[in-house]
Amino acid sequence: MGNVRWGVIGSGYVAREFAQALAEVAGGQINAIWSNTNEHAKRFASSFGIPNVVRTVEELAHSDDVDAVYVASLNHLHFPHAYQAIQAGKPVLVEKPFTLNAQEAEKLIDAAREKRVLCMEAMWTRFVPAVREARRLAGTGVIGDVLGVEAALGMCQKKDVDSRFFRKEFGGGALYDMGVYPLYLVMDFMGMPTATESTAAILQETQVDESCSLSLRYPNGRSASIRCSITGVIEEDAVITGERGSIIIHPPLFRPYRLTLTTMPTEQVSRSERTKKGFLASVLSRLSGAGKPRSRTFKIPFNNNGYGYQVEEFMASLEKGEIENPTMPLSDTLNAMRIMDEARAQWRTARI
Amino acid sequence: MGNVRWGVIGSGYVAREFAQALAEVAGGQINAIWSNTNEHAKRFASSFGIPNVVRTVEELAHSDDVDAVYVASLNHLHFPHAYQAIQAGKPVLVEKPFTLNAQEAEKLIDAAREKRVLCMEAMWTRFVPAVREARRLAGTGVIGDVLGVEAALGMCQKKDVDSRFFRKEFGGGALYDMGVYPLYLVMDFMGMPTATESTAAILQETQVDESCSLSLRYPNGRSASIRCSITGVIEEDAVITGERGSIIIHPPLFRPYRLTLTTMPTEQVSRSERTKKGFLASVLSRLSGAGKPRSRTFKIPFNNNGYGYQVEEFMASLEKGEIENPTMPLSDTLNAMRIMDEARAQWRTARI
Repeated sequence: MGNVRWGVIGSGYVAREFAQALAEVAGGQINAIWSNTNEHAKRFASSFGIPNVVRTVEELAHSDDVDAVYVASLNHLHFPHAYQAIQAGKPVLVEKPFTLNAQEAEKLIDAAREKRVLCMEAMWTRFVPAVREARRLAGTGVIGDVLGVEAALGMCQKKDVDSRFFRKEFGGGALYDMGVYPLYLVMDFMGMPTATESTAAILQETQVDESCSLSLRYPNGRSASIRCSITGVIEEDAVITGERGSIIIHPPLFRPYRLTLTTMPTEQVSRSERTKKGFLASVLSRLSGAGKPRSRTFKIPFNNNGYGYQVEEFMASLEKGEIENPTMPLSDTLNAMRIMDEARAQWRTARI
Repeated sequence: MGNVRWGVIGSGYVAREFAQALAEVAGGQINAIWSNTNEHAKRFASSFGIPNVVRTVEELAHSDDVDAVYVASLNHLHFPHAYQAIQAGKPVLVEKPFTLNAQEAEKLIDAAREKRVLCMEAMWTRFVPAVREARRLAGTGVIGDVLGVEAALGMCQKKDVDSRFFRKEFGGGALYDMGVYPLYLVMDFMGMPTATESTAAILQETQVDESCSLSLRYPNGRSASIRCSITGVIEEDAVITGERGSIIIHPPLFRPYRLTLTTMPTEQVSRSERTKKGFLASVLSRLSGAGKPRSRTFKIPFNNNGYGYQVEEFMASLEKGEIENPTMPLSDTLNAMRIMDEARAQWRTARI
């Protein structure tokens, strides 16, 4: 393929990040931009040297000068915009949350499969080096079977009920905005849960979740939990707990660059004398150095603003003619939407 | 009161820790010891210079040379042993888990109140300086309303199905052994939840939980989660998330000595320009320094092995004639037992 000519829908913050990332990786350029506000589109085009500012999404979707479409409009518009692009035969990279619910997601996925065009959720954190490395480490079996994951992401945001973050009709709320990241991280290591229970602090004025938590159940009593907020300050990290060790992805979970791998020396774990001495004794012997688990912290830096990895990956899939990216498959996207649907359904009925 | 003459029931690891702590604080001494194995009792007595080795719990409970009883027998014996001491009119400090269920706990509490003797669960981590300081900080309002707590404790233990840790009849399992600590920590900051959901990995051979997680619901969608294991390696810390900041109690949660307090500068939170720039922009502006939350890490060391604080506190309550300690009230103990009962009931019925 050589050079991918992108059409971008939306001109907000994430679109700018995308444009910045694209400028830093090889193989692509933005050829057309559409924004709800034409003025914004023009400014965006001039910032990034984009030749075409189009007037409608339809025009962009059908343009012969566009090979792939990046959907970065407001959350509630991801579905109609991506659908239009797919119907026009264009591969799409769709910002998170992919859609507003699993039903929309299913329609979009079906459409993409029918048209045989590449469709991928822009879950950029799945491609960043620290997360890839954490996945690789877990895959080697060094921490044993994964027993659980805890991940959290949050931000203390002004409660501006007029901003998109707090508007239900625009797909606002903590889960869509923040929660998806830890949720995908959990799914990276544990897959689809058998059950989901969720709590949410709902903003009275606009009925969106300003904070929420999900407790995810897995076979054999394993579990994971995520916590997110757009009004609270949350320790933004992830802990992957295994039978023989753990992996910590240190804050900020958004742009992680440090991992700590802790492993139990096998000979220490199995030394029966420790059991005889008692459990607390073994804790203390660990603390005092004998039989201590080994911990190493790695720095894993970025080469770009963090969005470049997914852009490269998407373009590599295009090059190979894939209609799904193996690292960010559509089944994961659909699963995540289902989990979020379930969580939101519980908020509606819960009166705690 | 001046000098408290203690009778100790049990001679295991925790009893030794208690004896060590008592030697380091003023106002008490061990005057009598009983152990299931008389040989062990004698060895314990000679290690700590204890004048009396008694043959029965009854003898210890009724001894005129004993002012207070410390119950450190196997978990399933806490109830009968503490009950005997209370009936004999002795104040009791009872190791965790207080009893095996809420019904036993209630009986013990009723008996203590009827006899008007001091009764306290030996939740020593509630008294350690780092936890006290975290509670004090949260109480000042510096992190705003508490939205949630996540806490975890675990240990990679050899699966020895003959050890008490893995025996149901001795009150084994991760929740009793490890989970109570993070559970009490959650209750410290959030009180009694309105609902509990739990998952557990049950050891097939002995039917005890080798790992479990509790998801605790609170009014207004707030929530907390705890995770514990006696076979997995868990990141042993606690994060208290507030609306305007967070407090991290760093590992090891058993003997915490470091806190990180993160607070959002109020002027930054309310600057509406950040909302306009977009949420991700505000994340990045934080990361790049502008509007960055302030984080400070404190070291808060111990003066003894960590058990001394609860011993001093118990003896101070005795001195004041209190029948309940205000920092570790019996209502908290009963609540914790109820939460654990609910969790265990769910394990019995869950077939996930």
